[in-house]
This record gives sequence, C-alpha cells and structure tokens, in this order.
Amino acid sequence: MTDVAFQPIGKRVQAEPGDTLLEAAQNAGVAISAVCGGVGVCGDCRVRVLRGAVSALNPTEEDLLSDADLASGLRLACQVEIVGDGEIVVDVPADSLSAAQRSQVEGEEIPLDVDPALRTFDLTANPPSIADLRGDWERVIGLDPTNYRVGAAEIAELPGILRAHDWHFRMAAHDHDVVRFLPPAQTPLGFAVDVGTTGLAAYLVDLLTGETIGIAGATNPQIAYGEDVMARLTMVVRDPAAAGSKLQKSIIDGLNDLLREVCTLAGVKTTDVLDVVTVGNTAMHHLLLGLPVEQLGSAPYVPAISSAMQTNARALGLAVAPGAMLYLPPNVAGFVGGDHVAMLLATATADLPGVTLSLDIGTNTEVTLNANGQMWSCSTASGPAFEGAHIRDGMRAADGAIERVVWHEGELKWLTINHEKPVGLCGSGILDAVYALRSADILTITGRMKRDHPRVSGENHNIWYEVAAATTTGHGRAIGISRSDVNEIQLAKGAIRAGIKILVEEAGLQENDIDLVIVAGAFGNYIDLAGAVEIGMFPPLPLERFRQVGNAAGIGAKRLLINAAERSRAAEIVQHLQYVELTNHPAFKDRFSQAVLLTPNPWD
Amino acid sequence: MTDVAFQPIGKRVQAEPGDTLLEAAQNAGVAISAVCGGVGVCGDCRVRVLRGAVSALNPTEEDLLSDADLASGLRLACQVEIVGDGEIVVDVPADSLSAAQRSQVEGEEIPLDVDPALRTFDLTANPPSIADLRGDWERVIGLDPTNYRVGAAEIAELPGILRAHDWHFRMAAHDHDVVRFLPPAQTPLGFAVDVGTTGLAAYLVDLLTGETIGIAGATNPQIAYGEDVMARLTMVVRDPAAAGSKLQKSIIDGLNDLLREVCTLAGVKTTDVLDVVTVGNTAMHHLLLGLPVEQLGSAPYVPAISSAMQTNARALGLAVAPGAMLYLPPNVAGFVGGDHVAMLLATATADLPGVTLSLDIGTNTEVTLNANGQMWSCSTASGPAFEGAHIRDGMRAADGAIERVVWHEGELKWLTINHEKPVGLCGSGILDAVYALRSADILTITGRMKRDHPRVSGENHNIWYEVAAATTTGHGRAIGISRSDVNEIQLAKGAIRAGIKILVEEAGLQENDIDLVIVAGAFGNYIDLAGAVEIGMFPPLPLERFRQVGNAAGIGAKRLLINAAERSRAAEIVQHLQYVELTNHPAFKDRFSQAVLLTPNPWD
Repeated sequence: MTDVAFQPIGKRVQAEPGDTLLEAAQNAGVAISAVCGGVGVCGDCRVRVLRGAVSALNPTEEDLLSDADLASGLRLACQVEIVGDGEIVVDVPADSLSAAQRSQVEGEEIPLDVDPALRTFDLTANPPSIADLRGDWERVIGLDPTNYRVGAAEIAELPGILRAHDWHFRMAAHDHDVVRFLPPAQTPLGFAVDVGTTGLAAYLVDLLTGETIGIAGATNPQIAYGEDVMARLTMVVRDPAAAGSKLQKSIIDGLNDLLREVCTLAGVKTTDVLDVVTVGNTAMHHLLLGLPVEQLGSAPYVPAISSAMQTNARALGLAVAPGAMLYLPPNVAGFVGGDHVAMLLATATADLPGVTLSLDIGTNTEVTLNANGQMWSCSTASGPAFEGAHIRDGMRAADGAIERVVWHEGELKWLTINHEKPVGLCGSGILDAVYALRSADILTITGRMKRDHPRVSGENHNIWYEVAAATTTGHGRAIGISRSDVNEIQLAKGAIRAGIKILVEEAGLQENDIDLVIVAGAFGNYIDLAGAVEIGMFPPLPLERFRQVGNAAGIGAKRLLINAAERSRAAEIVQHLQYVELTNHPAFKDRFSQAVLLTPNPWD
Repeated sequence: MTDVAFQPIGKRVQAEPGDTLLEAAQNAGVAISAVCGGVGVCGDCRVRVLRGAVSALNPTEEDLLSDADLASGLRLACQVEIVGDGEIVVDVPADSLSAAQRSQVEGEEIPLDVDPALRTFDLTANPPSIADLRGDWERVIGLDPTNYRVGAAEIAELPGILRAHDWHFRMAAHDHDVVRFLPPAQTPLGFAVDVGTTGLAAYLVDLLTGETIGIAGATNPQIAYGEDVMARLTMVVRDPAAAGSKLQKSIIDGLNDLLREVCTLAGVKTTDVLDVVTVGNTAMHHLLLGLPVEQLGSAPYVPAISSAMQTNARALGLAVAPGAMLYLPPNVAGFVGGDHVAMLLATATADLPGVTLSLDIGTNTEVTLNANGQMWSCSTASGPAFEGAHIRDGMRAADGAIERVVWHEGELKWLTINHEKPVGLCGSGILDAVYALRSADILTITGRMKRDHPRVSGENHNIWYEVAAATTTGHGRAIGISRSDVNEIQLAKGAIRAGIKILVEEAGLQENDIDLVIVAGAFGNYIDLAGAVEIGMFPPLPLERFRQVGNAAGIGAKRLLINAAERSRAAEIVQHLQYVELTNHPAFKDRFSQAVLLTPNPWD
C-alpha cells in the first residue's frame, strides 16, 4: 500500500501498486475530469506528479499532451500507474477538476514566501523553585513577557502545557498580542474564506509551511434572505436590529459549518485555528461584522469603515481559538470590497506592465483596469443570472447541470456535469446556449428569438427554445432557454461590458489597448471565452490575451493568511485605486444600452 | 427644596432649608454615625461641607471638635442646618460612617491627577459626498485612523452616532485600541472592584473628572464554595474543569450584580462602562480569570502569571462595553496579589520615608515593610475569624452585631451596630471581648479561660463567657465567647504578628524601629487599636504611630482606573518588593508559637 496525496485540494488516500492516479483520485473523492471515463481518449485528466515513484510516460500521453504540457510536467492521471510503496504527491491543476469541485474554491496560485502575520515562537521556561517564585509566564527564557499582551483565555493554557511538555511550549502571537500557547509540536492553523454573495470558498492552511490542508465550498446561507446584495441590505434597513443580527448569524453559522468540515477532515480541532481571513464585497463585509448598512445602501454609498479590519474572531461567534483575530482587507468604495483587493493580490494585477483588465465575475462583478500603473475600479450589478438564478431552467453547477452547449450540424449539443442525466442549465451552459442560438441566427442582435425554428415554442416573451428533453426537472417538460432568459443574460453581460468600456474611457484608452484580461470567479473560470466574446460580454480581443484564474479572491484570502506583507500590499493597492461609481456616471446609461446587444462590438 | 450630595459615597437627596445635614443623610440612607441620636453630645457625626450655603459654626461644635478638626473644616452633621436652596455637597469621612457601611468600601484617599489609561477624544468627521466616498471612520478629522485598531462591535456604532450628532462624536481608546465610540456628551465610566476572599467593594467612576459616582459592597458569592482561599483552590484542583468554571461564573455574576446596582443608581447603562480594574489576592485573581490553580495551591506556589493583565472584560462575561478591557495589577508572589499592590499605591507606602509597616487585614493578611526604601512582603493566613466565621456566635458587621465591647466596673459592656438588639459578635466585637476578658484576667496569657467567674459556664473547651443575653440568636441561649473562639483569635492575630516579626528581622530591625503602621481592610479599619496592641496583634508602639485607612485596596483599584501612571507605579513596586514565603520560613514556627500569646510583647 502507498499513500497518495492530492494537492492543493488536500486529500489523501491509500492505493496499491498498479492502480492509476485516476483510480486513486476517484477513491479519494477528488473529481478529476475524465470525459472518456479514463480510457486515454479525452486528455482531460491532467496532473503533475510532484513526488514519488510512478510509471514512465507512455505513447497515449505523448499523443494527447502538447509539447508545452509535457515540458511543464503534465501527465494523464488515467495512464500513470503507481510503482512501489513510497508516498506520492500529485498536483491537480484547477482545470482538471470537474466544474462542481473547481467552481468555488480552486484558483491559480503565484508562489509566496511563508511569513504570516501570526508568528510562532518555540520557547522554554525555567521550572519554578523556591528561588524563582515568579509566574509561569515570567519564567519564559529568551523573551520579555512585558512586551506581550496576554489575555485570560490564553494564559489559562500555559501552566498545563509547561508541565506536560518538560517546560517547552510554542507561542503564537499577532504583533504583541499572544494568540495562543500550544504544545511544542502543534501546528498553528489559519482559515481563509472568500465570502461571496452566492458562494463561500474556505481554505484550511498550515501557517508554518503555507500548505493548504483542506478546502470546502458551500452556498452562502444568507441566500435564504435574498439572492442579491440589495435585497439583503433592504431587509436590514427595514428592520436594522433584528434583520442585521439574523443575517450576521446566518453567515457566521455558514463559516462555522465550513470550519468544522475542513477541520474534521484534517483531524484537527476548530480551536486549533489561530488566524482567520475573510474577503467579501462591502455588503458581505458589513453583514458579517454586524455593521450598519443604511449608509451603504443609499447614495453616496459609504461604508462604516474602509480600512482593513482586525477584530476578535471568537467575539463574532467563530468557533476558533479565543485569541484568534479575524482580518478583513480594506474595502475600495461602494460595493467594491476586500474580495476584489484579494483578487488583485492573487493575480498580481497591480504589478503587471502594460494594460491589464481584471474581472471578478459574480452577482456583482468588480472590474479593475491597470493602465501602466494607474488603476481604476468599478462594480457592476451583473446579477445572479450567471449562477442560474432568474433563469427558467437555471441551476447551480452541480451534477446533471448542462455546463457546455454548442451548435453542431443544425442543432444544440450539450454536456452535463459528471455526465449525469440533465436537470437544468448552469451559468456556463446558459451563456453557451445564448451564443449558440445567436450563431445559428435563432436570436437576433437585440435578443429577439425567431419563431420559425422547429424547437422554438410559445408566444411573445414566453417563447423558448428546447435544449434537452428531461424527465427530472419536475415541471414535466423539456429543458429550454426562453426569451426572458436571454434578456437576463443580456443585462448581466451588458453591465459588465459597460463597466469595462467606462474604465477604458477613464484611462483615455481603447478596448483594443488591453494587453491582458484576467477573468476570475466561480463562473468566470468556466465560461467559454470565445462565446463570451462573440455575444459581447468581453471586448473582441484575441483569445490569447485572456487568462482564467479561478477563485482568485479565495486564493488572495489565503495569501493574506500566509504572508503579512500582502496585508500592507492590500492597503497600498486600495490607496492607488481610483473608484468609479457607475450608478451616477454620466456615460453609464448610454454605454449600457449599447452593451446589451448580442454582438462582439456594440459600440459600432 | 435643595439637593444634598454625599461624597464619596455618591448618594443624593432632596432637603428643606432648616433640615440638618444628619437628617438629610438619614433620608438618603447614608448611615452617619451618631451614637447620641443627633443631640450634639457624642461628636461622632463629623462631615465637611464642600459646597453650598449652611448655618455657621455653633458653640456645640466648637466644644466637641478639636482645634485640628476645626482647622481641617470638620463640622457636626447634627448641628449644620441647610440655608437657602442651592446645591450642597458634603464630604463624609470614612470614620463618620457606621461600621456596616464603612467596612467594605470606604477608605482614605490621597489626591490624584485625572489621567486615565482610557483616553477620550472629542472628534468630528467630514460628511460624505460624491467627492469623498471613504468610510465613516476614514473621514474623521485630526486623527490618523490607521494608527488605531477598531473592532467590529465598536465600528458598528459610529455611523449612527455621526448622523445623529451632526458628525461630532467622542472616542474612547486604550493605547491604540478603540474601546468605544460615544455620542459627544456621554461620560466615559470606569468600574473598580476590590475582590476580597470574603467581600466585594465596587466603585463607579467618572473617567473625565475622577469622581466616584457610585459605591456598593457585597459578599463574595464564592463563599458558598468555601470560606477561605485554600478550600476554594482544593475544590478546583479536585475537579479543574467544572469547579473552576463554577467559581469563575460565581464571581463574575457577583461583579455583574454590583455593576448593575451602581449603574442603576447612577442612571447609566452597564455598557457605558469602558474600563474595569479588579484587585484581589493571587487566588481571587486566578479564579476570576479562569486560570488553573494546581500550581498555585501547592509548593512552591507559583501563579500562572505575575505581571499585570489586560484582558477583554466582555469575553470574561462582564456586562460592560464590548471593547472594555479589564486590568488587574501585577501579583507579588504566593497569595500576595494585586490587591496588596493597590493598597500600597493607595497608602503611598513605597514613597514614605523611614520605616513603614502596611497591613491589609482580611482572611489572608498581607504585610509589607518599607524600611528606608527597601521593601519586604509576606502573606499570613489569618483566617476568617475576624469576619465572624468559626466563632460560636460570630457574624458579619451588620445591624445587631456587637461591634464594641469594654470591661467596665466589673462586667462587659457592649454596643451593637445601629443600636439594634444584639444578634451576635462581629470581628471587632470579638477582638474587643478577648482584650476585655484578658484585662479582667478571666483569660490567661495562653488563652485559658478561668472558671471562677459567675458568667463563665461549661466544661473544658466548651467553656464560655456570657457576653449578652439575647433572644434572637436562634439557639435560645445568651451570646457568649468561648474558649475555642479565643483560640481562633489567638491563631489569627498570632499569624499576623509572626509575619510582622519576620519582616522586621529580614530588614535587620526591631519592632520598635517602625515609624508608622498603616492598617487597612474592612476589619482593620474598625478594630480598637489599643486592645489589638494589648493582646499582641500589633507591636506595642505608641498609638499615634498607627493609621487606619479603610479599604485601601479598593481605593487603589480606583487609582488604577483614574491615572495610568499608577499602573506603571504598580509594576515598579512589585519589582522592588522582596517576597518572604512564610510557610517554609525557618523562623516562622517558632515566632508563631510565641505570637499566639495574649500579651503585647510575646518575644520577651
């Protein structure tokens, strides 16, 4: 038997020599994408073997992998067999995970030194004696205790640890505040969460090595109180005390559920978590912290606080160590919050030369343009359509969701997540379908659906196109995309495109001047870029100028845990960003009304 | 009608012109001592009129007050009449209060500058505009918000206050931590408590003026779990988790009760309290903070922490502002805790020239000797006898307790608190009785009770002397003092005297070298010094070398609230104190066995 570890998802499994890595992954519950079922045809299941003995490259792999893939060490999990019984460590790139797993938590990572805000000290104390009656804390060697503040819950653990471990212990501290005393070998852990309006993505991190030792995703439970930000803010403004604490409790409960999930899988206690980072838009930030939102929900939309926050995590109800602090990066302005700052950190947007456009696509889409070092940001209300909401047969990216649609030989062809029987359309499927219907000329440039196709049924705005027959949707009819679904997509993509256009204009540039478009976010990671460009969601740039990076906000949250300098960097970035408020921008209405057109260049 | 305020006890009442201050005090529930009933005979009811119009000095006052009294502004409350209707402020010295009121909370106060650790800033913010979309906190004028850490509960209050008060607000901060944002006119309050093994004394303080605006005392509710420190520690050592949290909850509940009492009387919310100081011996300190006590309860008796603590008060369960910190001064060693440090601060012991002996008499009696700048401290287990415990007819200093006993014309004469029917003996009464019986030669020097007096009954150790007939004691017999009561007092006073002797020897001095004896503590404030000297509790020094200062620990706790420099001073004092552990001191047993003798000089 040998031990196979899958990184960065953080799962381990036992396997036999001769097993393929794909089999091991399936046993571990790591959903590596393999459309062909592991017979060496699709070339989806690409992984890297970081350590351990495996079979040599075979002709199937040489056929299906490009020279660049091979040079970067990629292999096909279905072809690589385990040899011997040493430990094997496998890196699974985000692209190789099926949509459901990769959508919320995975993202590209730029290497980072491990130098966390939570510092760890390995210390020893002198045993007490008649000649040394000082307190346990005062008998610590090599550290001046008067330089540190230590709270009651923290000092309570020291006497027991000292006496159980021969006067050795580990101390975790934030600046000059003791966060916890630990037994000498215990790993200090961190917990980072991207708090999206719709989804939560959580990471459990070893703060000594920077390694991710657990990942989990969940729906933001606040969704029960309103799908978009404004619905939730309105609820609180109407009944500040009750609704505010209800929404706060809801998200804290959601975070605790994720915390328990990752900790249970990693075999640690939730109270072993000593530092927490959450990133979210300004509304999520305020609702999580229990801050008032009246002033945030109406013009001129000012937050209670813009700067980075550091507040006791346990006081908010998080089931972590009593001394653990919760850090939230600074907010930019309006709804552009710390999640976008985290995304800019994770993608190094602020450090890139030339003109870079970074988008984090979600219920709100934040857009930043870095034009040769000068930066502009805005937030666009793209709405929940990309998450499948407000769409007749929409659904989240789960088993059975149609995630890919193409127009092929006169009809729509589709694929579902995990090849399950279709039950609805997830965001990428809807976007694909709009592009497919537009390319087949069943949709006009304004989004009107032509009636003369055999699969188009219904009347006026109830008109719809049958995508797939299905028996499991519950409404007893085929899965389709309606005229009003198309309009939802037009509004969503139009808001994003108008935002891009306005930032480009603020910088005095043309869309074609953009050298690189970084697309982040659960949905953004999985959309078909060619289709998105064709329907005018993104500027019509060559596709090689685009990079899909996954959940960059979540990765940025992890970076803020792992390296304290990233926290200073976050403050710097916010200071240099120029925020553009779109709601009262003189050009917005005009740009938006053009941007809803289903064409790559609506400005012509 | 006019308003009469009694300081420092903090009570107010309405009165009519022509009323005496004694009548006003009685209406306010301020128990000014007046044995003669207010007819101008006893001269007990001494007060100072700090402000307001009252009648001129009359011949009765001139008769009963000494020149020194008159020079210091003392008047007799029963003789001073209210004139006109302006506000009157009266200072009631601790000595003028009846025992029950003055025992726990009153004490001599040395003037102190108001410069609290909790700083208050009066600030303004720029209103937001399209041109200034920063957060509310970032728009504050004249302060760099990045220099301050602000938690979630604190920032939550800012937007509402700014908008309700035309962008003005008050900020309370500890170092660089925001404690609370307040409306512009709100007074920042502090709460100081002396946490005694037996009693609690609490003070509500205006942190802008340093004035005491409320005082309250109560029994330490932990007493239900054991009268002395060791009983409570043993309980926790046997069942650390359950008993520790039970005792912690008990004292926190007790503090919250006092907090609610003083806040209700002052018409403020408990959450308006922004800073808290508690002082207590090392065991009270550990039990309050929930620290383990195993290592404290067995040799070499080391605390978990000696240094001053600063910990979030709300996290411990105190019903104060979420950001309020609880400060506890440093512990010395063994059971000599921060309460003794506070007592040393309040009495300025460390600053006095010559040789000063300071004692804080309680269930444990802490003793410090300052011999020309060098200081030694010890703790003696004086036990709860002075509180009336372990005494056949003992009781606390409450209505009906015999508080004063003298031998007069061949029999014991006694006085009860508030002249109520006698129900038992409180500490001072017991001590007086021992002295009286010794002076009448009914007790021998070794504490044996002679059988040949008509009021002595019983056999062997059950032998007792009838002090007073009473019908309300419940046991249906006369109040008396038994041979074993006398032994309890011998052990208690012997422990104190042995401690004094050993410190004097450590300093290479004789008892007679002591220039000043400062006697503090609930009980110490009220004992008859002459009697205490005669039975050998204190060295036989001239009585003018003694000073009774009341609850100096509580007054010290207030000082730590009112002036931050006192906190540095506390650290300095602890650094300079030499702690003498008596339990294993080579000379202790010998000195103690002599010190139990009922004679002024047991060393002869």
